[in-house]
Amino acid sequence: MISRDKHDRMANAIRFLSMDAVEQAKSGHPGLPMGAADIATVLYTRFMTHDPKKPDWADRDRFVLSAGHGSMLLYSLLYLLGYEDITIDEIKNFRQLGSRTAGHPEYGYAAGIETTTGPLGQGLANSVGMALAERLLNARYGDELVNHYTYVLAGDGCLMEGISQEAIALAGHLKLNKLIVMWDDNQISIDGPVSLSDSTDQCARFAASGWNTIRADGHDPDAIASAIEAARESDLPTLIAFRTTIGYGSPNKAGTNKVHGSPLGAEEIAAVRKELGWEAEPFVVPSDILDDWRLAGLRSAKERKEWEKRLAAVSAEVRAEFERRMRGDLPESFAGAIDDYKKKLGEENPKLATRAASENALEVINDALSETIGGSADLTGSNNTRTSQLGAVKPGEFSGRYIHYGIREHGMAAAMNGMALHGGVIPYGGTFLTFSDYARPAMRLASLMGIRSIFVMTHDSIGLGEDGPTHQPVEHLAALRAIPNHLVFRPADPVETAECWQVALETKDAPSTLALTRQKLEPVRNDYKSENLCARGAYELLAASDEAKVTIFASGSEVEIAVDARNQLEGRGVPTRVVSVPCFELFEAQSDEYKDMLLGKNTVRIAIEAGISMGWERFIGEDGVFIGMKGFGASAPAPELYEHFGITAEAAVQAAEARLNKAD
Amino acid sequence: MISRDKHDRMANAIRFLSMDAVEQAKSGHPGLPMGAADIATVLYTRFMTHDPKKPDWADRDRFVLSAGHGSMLLYSLLYLLGYEDITIDEIKNFRQLGSRTAGHPEYGYAAGIETTTGPLGQGLANSVGMALAERLLNARYGDELVNHYTYVLAGDGCLMEGISQEAIALAGHLKLNKLIVMWDDNQISIDGPVSLSDSTDQCARFAASGWNTIRADGHDPDAIASAIEAARESDLPTLIAFRTTIGYGSPNKAGTNKVHGSPLGAEEIAAVRKELGWEAEPFVVPSDILDDWRLAGLRSAKERKEWEKRLAAVSAEVRAEFERRMRGDLPESFAGAIDDYKKKLGEENPKLATRAASENALEVINDALSETIGGSADLTGSNNTRTSQLGAVKPGEFSGRYIHYGIREHGMAAAMNGMALHGGVIPYGGTFLTFSDYARPAMRLASLMGIRSIFVMTHDSIGLGEDGPTHQPVEHLAALRAIPNHLVFRPADPVETAECWQVALETKDAPSTLALTRQKLEPVRNDYKSENLCARGAYELLAASDEAKVTIFASGSEVEIAVDARNQLEGRGVPTRVVSVPCFELFEAQSDEYKDMLLGKNTVRIAIEAGISMGWERFIGEDGVFIGMKGFGASAPAPELYEHFGITAEAAVQAAEARLNKAD
Repeated sequence: MISRDKHDRMANAIRFLSMDAVEQAKSGHPGLPMGAADIATVLYTRFMTHDPKKPDWADRDRFVLSAGHGSMLLYSLLYLLGYEDITIDEIKNFRQLGSRTAGHPEYGYAAGIETTTGPLGQGLANSVGMALAERLLNARYGDELVNHYTYVLAGDGCLMEGISQEAIALAGHLKLNKLIVMWDDNQISIDGPVSLSDSTDQCARFAASGWNTIRADGHDPDAIASAIEAARESDLPTLIAFRTTIGYGSPNKAGTNKVHGSPLGAEEIAAVRKELGWEAEPFVVPSDILDDWRLAGLRSAKERKEWEKRLAAVSAEVRAEFERRMRGDLPESFAGAIDDYKKKLGEENPKLATRAASENALEVINDALSETIGGSADLTGSNNTRTSQLGAVKPGEFSGRYIHYGIREHGMAAAMNGMALHGGVIPYGGTFLTFSDYARPAMRLASLMGIRSIFVMTHDSIGLGEDGPTHQPVEHLAALRAIPNHLVFRPADPVETAECWQVALETKDAPSTLALTRQKLEPVRNDYKSENLCARGAYELLAASDEAKVTIFASGSEVEIAVDARNQLEGRGVPTRVVSVPCFELFEAQSDEYKDMLLGKNTVRIAIEAGISMGWERFIGEDGVFIGMKGFGASAPAPELYEHFGITAEAAVQAAEARLNKAD
Repeated sequence: MISRDKHDRMANAIRFLSMDAVEQAKSGHPGLPMGAADIATVLYTRFMTHDPKKPDWADRDRFVLSAGHGSMLLYSLLYLLGYEDITIDEIKNFRQLGSRTAGHPEYGYAAGIETTTGPLGQGLANSVGMALAERLLNARYGDELVNHYTYVLAGDGCLMEGISQEAIALAGHLKLNKLIVMWDDNQISIDGPVSLSDSTDQCARFAASGWNTIRADGHDPDAIASAIEAARESDLPTLIAFRTTIGYGSPNKAGTNKVHGSPLGAEEIAAVRKELGWEAEPFVVPSDILDDWRLAGLRSAKERKEWEKRLAAVSAEVRAEFERRMRGDLPESFAGAIDDYKKKLGEENPKLATRAASENALEVINDALSETIGGSADLTGSNNTRTSQLGAVKPGEFSGRYIHYGIREHGMAAAMNGMALHGGVIPYGGTFLTFSDYARPAMRLASLMGIRSIFVMTHDSIGLGEDGPTHQPVEHLAALRAIPNHLVFRPADPVETAECWQVALETKDAPSTLALTRQKLEPVRNDYKSENLCARGAYELLAASDEAKVTIFASGSEVEIAVDARNQLEGRGVPTRVVSVPCFELFEAQSDEYKDMLLGKNTVRIAIEAGISMGWERFIGEDGVFIGMKGFGASAPAPELYEHFGITAEAAVQAAEARLNKAD
């Protein structure tokens, strides 16, 4: 047991490291680390199961700092506990170029940072995915191998963001009892008191969604410990409302918004030193306190070793699968399974919507991979995301592999990110492409973190028909392609769909979006090729019969239109190539030679996509022809819409001939 | 009082029109109109204050069908009540090209459609803005002119979406007591029973955010009426949980997800006819029932006339302002006020961040316009959105003009849309540009509807510095420019900021986003010009000293870099122009001659923007030089980041010279 005095000094070490780092950086957020230092100290000295010497231990407890602006709390902890990545020099270099201690915690910058946070509410929603992944793996591998907690520190902002409701409703529904959210209830937001903008009784709100709730003094170590203890025993997820004082210890700024997001200043820091009886120089933690922290860092080493023994004791087969899944590698048999499937498609390539082709591909994938976890934001029958292998996950019952996420696109995407971050599972989830807008902040974070969340976005154009402009994506392909490190696939038929799925699954360091049609399409890849052509991002689907005069680029549902136009042009004696473009980002990664070859700059260049032109200039240049959308869609049967908006083979043929005549 | 029998027959008229229209369209959603017909009938026969002959009556009650997929409920009502825009032919043409009866209700397609709905939760959040606008106008004009209810019909999806939490927390906090949300509690979602994905006690949840809540049988007319009556008397916003049966009346499909989103089929419709004793042919409403409905449509005509008398009785000045504001016109003095301000800037054009320049412009604007309503999602001091005129709106107290929206970007944007739709106010609201992702679904709807919501998005690039990649927009300018009918402004200095604000405010039929810097910038427009140059979208800021060899395009904070590069190049004898590009969309609307002149295709073309290149190909062509971002940002002081990512005048000079040498 740690004495109150020792607790205070350990907590103050967090406070002073945080204050000093923010002061030195001349920017940052001291208020949260100072206010939440007591909670963090109790959590890490009495409860957290983790090992700084083995930060990737699969069964460690996860700690998510959802209020990411308080990053110095996390960096201080990692330094004090002995995580090698965070040295005192890193603390001193807080917010400087190339440091591991970025303004907000960035996943991948240092071990111990479980997720990137800063955009509020995301960490909370990630944690739901982590806690869900833990239960899913527990259902498969048992308590011996997977049985840990997920702790979250959330601020008022996290709880005000709408995503929080999606996350807590899902967690409450599924009874994720090993999820413990600690709310830093400091009653202060940036504009001033929270009462300026909110009157919500958060405990009542969480209770309404099936949570256990506890209120406790966030500065009383025993009260903090009792609350966490009770939370661990609950059969429901728990919210602990820890009443705290933001900037605790600052005589003139504590409890106000002045301490939230800017350095305290030398004078006030001196005052805090006096107030808290801290005599060490900036960035110096007295050696006895540092020793106490380092000891705390060792507290789970034995547990970790015991876990390793248990892992060593399970069957070789189970161990191999568990370790492979936690590494994120696919089984060696996977590529062969896809290849076999492609062979089969080569024989019978059916006329299908790509969403149906995706379902067929998933039947193969979900057989080959035990780690895929499917789901949809209440559009299962439309997104075609559920296959025969996937039983539904139910409240408190996690043997299934399919999540009914509810009408919660944002919460789904962020939970998927949490699952991908946890490891051992590969999450995919569906909604309509137009509602990628709802999920976008989480999709961006998946890209920034470089994690394998796979978004299945069906109804990907005006081709969805009668639901009209609210449901018809027009700018969404461009907007998603704009996100760095995000693979946006738009396959044209069953073979391309299988190939895109393969690349998405084999890419460990980036998320993918598959944009899929509602409407049926003519297959365009009828002869079996072992090579994954989609992996090049763009490829020549049909060569010209002679030296090409026209190149038609297209993606997805418009490839069949490009093929039709090409055949018409060839019929009129105009040698024409068709280039299928399933993924812009992969194309950019090809060699200059390949790209030049493909672009065919000496031909008339036409691109066809039932979306806006933005981005297609890359393929057709300034003087190319774009056939697509200029504004929002309309409500009508799909074939009429294609006619109405002029996205037809005839339009492409006319445009090509007009250009060729002009050039003559 | 309407007899039960008459009520049933009136409600059945909605049911059969809806079933028949969906059947004829071969797609659509009959379940909600059938289930909510009783609620709608009671609302429109006993409570709604509106006049089909004067649909734009300013003080009418607003009805928002947040569950927009149930559009046939609304179209049936509008037809039955006698709104001229919705004829029986329009009902028959449900979901057909060019009809007013699109798959989801589209604002502007027909009078009586108060907002575009379909993306779930949006209507509910719009309604918060409508109810807020009502109270704000009431505070200014009194009960005599503005005193009406806002009714919402919301489904399970609306309540599951995270935006609903932001909306209800804001409404509860502000005590918007004239807001009444009727929840169609049918316990069915698309995947099946709501219990597949949710266990939330919605009444408890709303109560936790300060709402009055009532439960009632949604098929008992008197219970419905009592509930609405009680809601109207509450001093809190009210949720009425109406327990209903989806697809009420369908013997084989009612109460299941089978009736949600597809036609019932001829056989089942015949069964419903039998079940409900309805003998009329498809699309025929027996004349006595139609008469009853048309009578219901007349119930507020007298009230409307009395209101017009009251309006006629107020002072000419007040009436003129009220009418002008409701029309959405600006006062004639506005342009002059901006011009005077520009003159003043021409003298002293200070070195400011554009967010500070925006605050200065708003001081002028908020003086000139009584209708602007400012706000921020808890970043008031960072977004610089509050000016001296704007007192804060408080719970139950609406004399202010500034909204503390809380950490609720999505709810803010959707509430702003509701305010713009209500009319009489012009809402603007701020957050960081990177968090436009959170607000994006509502920003898209503003564009689709063509309404004047103005989004103030500060911290618009890596120039924000240390907060790092989560907070640094990289793809956001491109992603917002991708949305049709959305003016994205990125002004370079105080003069451009004032000009962009002017265009945003003068554009009644499109939303605007102003992307503004955190960091200070050198002014680039130091000589007064009366013409609003930004209104052209792009213009030549600096001519070349001789026939131009290089054109540098830039926006916002990179214009000063372009000017620097230009001066260096001119110093080396390379005649160079600078084109400032504050708004892509406005540039596209210019004449071909102007565009050709500006693009300078015979020069080496360079674009500089601290974002991704997507979209800039329009200016620099396939072979131009883009100086900007290729991936995510980093955490460091801003000047270091510009160096690190190579966004410098030197890089532009080097690139220009390399191209010129290559060309030689």
